Amino acid sequence: MSGKIRISVDAMGGDAGAQTVIPGAAIVLERCPDIEFLLFGDKAVIEPLLENHPRLKECSRVFHSDVAIEMDEKPSQALRKGRGKSSMWQAIAAVKAGDADVAVSAGNTGALMAMSKFCLRTMSDIERPAIAAIWPTMRGESIVLDVGATVGADSQQLIDFAILGGAMARTIQGIEKPTVGLLNIGVEEVKGVEEVRNAGRMLRDLSPPNLQYVGFVEGDDIGKGTVDVVVTEGFAGNIALKTAEGTAKQLAGYLRAAMSRTIFAKIGYLFAKGAFDRLRAKMDPRKMNGGVFLGLNGIVIKSHGGTDGEGFASAVELAYDMAKNELIKKISEDIGDYHRGKITTADEGLEG
Amino acid sequence: MSGKIRISVDAMGGDAGAQTVIPGAAIVLERCPDIEFLLFGDKAVIEPLLENHPRLKECSRVFHSDVAIEMDEKPSQALRKGRGKSSMWQAIAAVKAGDADVAVSAGNTGALMAMSKFCLRTMSDIERPAIAAIWPTMRGESIVLDVGATVGADSQQLIDFAILGGAMARTIQGIEKPTVGLLNIGVEEVKGVEEVRNAGRMLRDLSPPNLQYVGFVEGDDIGKGTVDVVVTEGFAGNIALKTAEGTAKQLAGYLRAAMSRTIFAKIGYLFAKGAFDRLRAKMDPRKMNGGVFLGLNGIVIKSHGGTDGEGFASAVELAYDMAKNELIKKISEDIGDYHRGKITTADEGLEG
Repeated sequence: MSGKIRISVDAMGGDAGAQTVIPGAAIVLERCPDIEFLLFGDKAVIEPLLENHPRLKECSRVFHSDVAIEMDEKPSQALRKGRGKSSMWQAIAAVKAGDADVAVSAGNTGALMAMSKFCLRTMSDIERPAIAAIWPTMRGESIVLDVGATVGADSQQLIDFAILGGAMARTIQGIEKPTVGLLNIGVEEVKGVEEVRNAGRMLRDLSPPNLQYVGFVEGDDIGKGTVDVVVTEGFAGNIALKTAEGTAKQLAGYLRAAMSRTIFAKIGYLFAKGAFDRLRAKMDPRKMNGGVFLGLNGIVIKSHGGTDGEGFASAVELAYDMAKNELIKKISEDIGDYHRGKITTADEGLEG
Repeated sequence: MSGKIRISVDAMGGDAGAQTVIPGAAIVLERCPDIEFLLFGDKAVIEPLLENHPRLKECSRVFHSDVAIEMDEKPSQALRKGRGKSSMWQAIAAVKAGDADVAVSAGNTGALMAMSKFCLRTMSDIERPAIAAIWPTMRGESIVLDVGATVGADSQQLIDFAILGGAMARTIQGIEKPTVGLLNIGVEEVKGVEEVRNAGRMLRDLSPPNLQYVGFVEGDDIGKGTVDVVVTEGFAGNIALKTAEGTAKQLAGYLRAAMSRTIFAKIGYLFAKGAFDRLRAKMDPRKMNGGVFLGLNGIVIKSHGGTDGEGFASAVELAYDMAKNELIKKISEDIGDYHRGKITTADEGLEG
């Protein structure tokens, strides 16, 4: 892709809205200067903030919108109120219109997904979109999906998720044939729900060309980094993600308490401060901020609503990577290859 | 309860069998001298091991069994092969016969649950047993169930789990009216699967007398200790448990790596060694070893198969606490109170 990466931003999304979004966008620009921003929201709020970031101002166009979606609005409400005219909708619509390569919002997840589906539509050959999270592991990073777009998934939808997640791994991690595992409660073929068992059999039989299906994985395999892509339906995926976040916070709390309990511990902390700082940086949840909506005719990135500028910058940087490395193109290729493969396999079946 | 607590043990269960079980039982005896052990397994293996633990030998009776269930046997296989004659079955049967107050095994979970159900039967008014885990939280400990007895649960089964978990919290934590939350992917009433939403409504309407239903909780609420009892079906519960275990290991790995990277960090580690030791003890998974099978006419405790003597001792100690504090009696009371309450509520409904 030549030229600048065009990122449309819902400047009113998130707990602090433009107060977080504008400084966040400014941070990214330092790392990735080849961005052009389309900022959607209240001009009266955005423009004064841009005055503090002259470089961002130079690379941005501001599009006024009167309507902002609240963090607690129901998806159906948000659609009624915000379709066409909200900053969230307009940021997504810019992708649909081809004016932006990718959209980012820190607004409410349900509303953002509803609008994204309504505006961008699901890709042909994909039944349902998924939200993919990038999960830090002991071996690097893995992709976990779906972490909450939809509750439940049938076998075919799980296979779609495998292909979508595989394409994302190829895009951001540059892995040629990512390893894929189905999240289950045991690694034996007989374990788990029927949908997962069937999806496992189908993935083995069809063996999609651009990924390497390795079988079932369990909850502790995610953090180990056993596979590049972990596939599950949205209920279990969301619970896994939040449980891991909770556990990480809990252990950080234990560590802080342990390091401040005695004078020796405090002295030890001072000596090891560099190490603790690195550890803190490694565990910083802001670095991994950004859920990727996959399976739509366009890419939308969801940032945590409660993050700060640094965290929002991570989400925008993720958006940048996805657009720069042509995620949508890779997904289309992978879906095409998979379906051609399916047809061939069926033919062989008939002949044999 | 007067007299000794009688604990039946499947001495052949677990990766290392009696090599772990016998030293483990000996450790518990130091902490809880009022135990009588019934040890089931190969006498030729058990008796020589007992020679190293004269005190344990004195408090134990050994019952010979030729058949040991393998760790990878399917439940149906295990039942066919081991019903009546395996050490696992006999340990459970001792509870049924009233010879033991509680059974402990480190054997394979599926086989142990299948045999426990077959031998002890599900309690009347309870549809399905659950496996409850004790989860360390920032506020102490919570109970999470089901962590893998069955995949899926309908609303009534989730309510059963709430009552079973509540009774367990009353037993081991001495809380009079434990708080209970339903694990979901959002705290709003409209979120999640139908079974969970219905169970939430029913728990609000029926308000079982011995627990306090607080609503939906999310994955990160488990580690926070938001509620005393977290209720979910076995698929999501197992994934949450294993994901948390995986995250804890991952962070411990990061911490170890950080503390050995530079000379300053190493010096810091030496100063803070006491703090790190306490932290390690706090995070020691062996301390929280033991899944409790709830909803059967008798208590069975499942120890991790790969644990060591110290870990097995934790599982036995948990069994001891359950028996000593009369878990089964409390469960029966709570189920009775709940069903009387349901009938009263229905009557009121008719009259009003």
